Amino acid sequence: MHSARFLASRLVSSEVSPLFHRFSGCLVTNTPRPSGCITLRKTAKIPSRKITTTSSRCAQPASSAFDDHAALYADHNWSRSIPITDVSKDPDAKMVVVQWEDGDSQRYPNVWLKSNCHCEGCYSKGAHGKLKYTQHLDLDIQADVVSITQDGQVLAIKWSDGHMTSVPSNWLRCNRFDQSDRDPVADAKLDLWGSDVMSSSRLRTFEFDELMQSDEALLDWLSEIKVLGISLVKNAPKMSHQIHKLADRVGYITPSTFGTHSDVMVVEGGDMLGFSNGYLMPHTDFSYYVSPPGVALFHCIKNTSTVGGDSLLIDGFKAAMELKTDHHDAFNMLTKHEIEHVAISVNKKITQQGFYHHARHPLIRLDALGQLKQITFNEIYHASLFRVPVDDVIPMFSAIKAFNKILLRDDNVFKYKMKAGDILTFNNHRMLHGRSAFSTDIGSVERHLQTCFVEWDCVLSKLRVLKKSPSENLE
Amino acid sequence: MHSARFLASRLVSSEVSPLFHRFSGCLVTNTPRPSGCITLRKTAKIPSRKITTTSSRCAQPASSAFDDHAALYADHNWSRSIPITDVSKDPDAKMVVVQWEDGDSQRYPNVWLKSNCHCEGCYSKGAHGKLKYTQHLDLDIQADVVSITQDGQVLAIKWSDGHMTSVPSNWLRCNRFDQSDRDPVADAKLDLWGSDVMSSSRLRTFEFDELMQSDEALLDWLSEIKVLGISLVKNAPKMSHQIHKLADRVGYITPSTFGTHSDVMVVEGGDMLGFSNGYLMPHTDFSYYVSPPGVALFHCIKNTSTVGGDSLLIDGFKAAMELKTDHHDAFNMLTKHEIEHVAISVNKKITQQGFYHHARHPLIRLDALGQLKQITFNEIYHASLFRVPVDDVIPMFSAIKAFNKILLRDDNVFKYKMKAGDILTFNNHRMLHGRSAFSTDIGSVERHLQTCFVEWDCVLSKLRVLKKSPSENLE
Repeated sequence: MHSARFLASRLVSSEVSPLFHRFSGCLVTNTPRPSGCITLRKTAKIPSRKITTTSSRCAQPASSAFDDHAALYADHNWSRSIPITDVSKDPDAKMVVVQWEDGDSQRYPNVWLKSNCHCEGCYSKGAHGKLKYTQHLDLDIQADVVSITQDGQVLAIKWSDGHMTSVPSNWLRCNRFDQSDRDPVADAKLDLWGSDVMSSSRLRTFEFDELMQSDEALLDWLSEIKVLGISLVKNAPKMSHQIHKLADRVGYITPSTFGTHSDVMVVEGGDMLGFSNGYLMPHTDFSYYVSPPGVALFHCIKNTSTVGGDSLLIDGFKAAMELKTDHHDAFNMLTKHEIEHVAISVNKKITQQGFYHHARHPLIRLDALGQLKQITFNEIYHASLFRVPVDDVIPMFSAIKAFNKILLRDDNVFKYKMKAGDILTFNNHRMLHGRSAFSTDIGSVERHLQTCFVEWDCVLSKLRVLKKSPSENLE
Repeated sequence: MHSARFLASRLVSSEVSPLFHRFSGCLVTNTPRPSGCITLRKTAKIPSRKITTTSSRCAQPASSAFDDHAALYADHNWSRSIPITDVSKDPDAKMVVVQWEDGDSQRYPNVWLKSNCHCEGCYSKGAHGKLKYTQHLDLDIQADVVSITQDGQVLAIKWSDGHMTSVPSNWLRCNRFDQSDRDPVADAKLDLWGSDVMSSSRLRTFEFDELMQSDEALLDWLSEIKVLGISLVKNAPKMSHQIHKLADRVGYITPSTFGTHSDVMVVEGGDMLGFSNGYLMPHTDFSYYVSPPGVALFHCIKNTSTVGGDSLLIDGFKAAMELKTDHHDAFNMLTKHEIEHVAISVNKKITQQGFYHHARHPLIRLDALGQLKQITFNEIYHASLFRVPVDDVIPMFSAIKAFNKILLRDDNVFKYKMKAGDILTFNNHRMLHGRSAFSTDIGSVERHLQTCFVEWDCVLSKLRVLKKSPSENLE
């Protein structure tokens, strides 16, 4: 295991040549041009390297749609792109056709170009927001004059209504409609793993104190949670409210029906299985929420049980990809049909107000482009209500069983006995976690975890802000 | 307008005969049997009425799948259902076929029946959760002996492995697979409205103090936010942190990048358009979040501007239904294609840490059954990135324009100038809100809103808990 000091961020721009390819297919994109997803590196062998900045990208042709935002951010002042060599009007299609020096070309609808005019009257640079709405747009607008300026770096358009719009070449290359690259942060290429994630030195560890002080360590740690789905923080003080400090470094805690955090320990008469010393089958948390929280911080304050109490951790995305390959019909069924989840409690020992949650999720959720988005799996809370055609019921149980079998296979379950001061941090939309049963003496607390959640919206925003910071400092 | 004292909850069970039908089609279900959605009543004319309880339902045949949960909750001790008259095994299909006295029948797969065994070894009554997982199930399990007991109220099964399972008739009738009724809370039938929502006395108002004290008022108020999408709370103290008190009555605030709440007023150099005195086009909040928060609480602490400053409120679901009827292709396009939303700020006056959010949403999101789920609309933050086939770009702009035109039509925009002490509460997944420009003197605060959000998971849970409370008290 390596500390943050010696390893560079895994969320790097895609134009840097890959050092090591470990997966033949990119999980998140299948576009023909250089992908917006993340190049995987063998982290254990990467030397320390500066985080790629916007400034360094300025000298390169843009290859990522995410540079769209970088362009907005930097007011389009990119120094150089591949030059535009030709531009023509297509009045019938109501489009402008752009051709570049490398032979690439793209059609751009007039109304889209006009809607993205960044002149002072159309766009607020301070607010990074549009001032003109679609209602103001003429769908039939035509380009009167199109021209190339600044050595091919800028396309200038005079519209039929007299308005002028200028857009940089780099920005045009970033915006290729359904052929645009994906967001290199949110859609980062993922690193899938099995039971040997720690023994093979792929699980990174971070010092609690370093995360409190260093933005570079913070960026590295959050990148790990995005790419590997899990990371281990060591040597946190063995007392309450350390996860709150860690969450504050990212942004803010998202509370739940249990409050800002839960104290997971044996609660006599606590009812929910988590508050016992029994076996907890690996699961995702808050499956009974319509919006299960994204990133989990589990702080081990005490774990002195002599037998058991191991954390059981599974990469749900790896299991889902296996299911897709080996049991394609089962995979399709689990992505198509929703499972109803219900959780009810009136137990005052674990919740002040009582709760009654009900949510529907496919066990495997795909995004609009068919890529893995979210695993939601906790059979304890599967309701009897089973909203599928009756003839799909047995195939659904068969599919769940097949998924279960892959998930729980020995080479997919990473076992780790947390030590006091450890904070396990992981993607609750991807990882399953559970624990083995453990010994306990009546009246004494043998195992105490304090847990909280931070939303992906918060984490992804922080990742982008941290990635930007170095270049901002240079400007 | 009427206070909560005189009006019963709108979230009532569907077996009660409807008093007034105002919509011919149910928005949330099209199943042939009695729908699980909510019967709409003309609220202004409804006399005070007790909330329907589980106890009162016990004497009725169950018609709602939601009673599934009620059954779990009450340990299946329902006093009476329509009796089962016949039960038979279908070994080839691995199912049991149940026939009732009224001629209705249903096939039940063996493995589903076994997985829902509620004996002590299979199910934790305290935790309301399953103890046996799919991995333990035999997909080929057969029923050895099926029998009807307790005057047709219970189906008893002896399985081929010797295990015994008993399930009540009512519970079986609730569980009809894809023909099951929908959740009467989460899938409540909605009441759509236009600019006359207040003048026609459909907008309900609630006294702040009453919501602080009365659970019945609380249930009524939350039901309004679910069914009508909007409700007005009056006479809150004209000072900070009143929305926090209101949120505490429901559960908890979901914070954002702005903290637990925002103080929306003119901030010199605040950058974001919300923090100016300009026109704000109606929009949903946090469109640039992957998970925009659900229910908004907007407290007017001050509004003394002499000109403008009206809130502009639009029922996005009504507009979407109009679009579906009048411009079906546009509706389909806006439900199919995702729009990219980006928001960036480094302005320390409005956010301590800076943010950089990016999310993709269809403007109109449907659920798995094709019903309206969520409107996400804020053109200010539409990114240039437009991930649709290039030939769909102009039709997409045309569709957005058509939706805009309906949204902003005079008879769809409810204008209301908030008074100090008002708290506007609404569904941010459905309602658009904006404001007209307003006059302001430099250096003085003319209009001050304090805003926060509560998640739907929290609100729906509270609704179910409140609905249950009366019956619990009777037991």
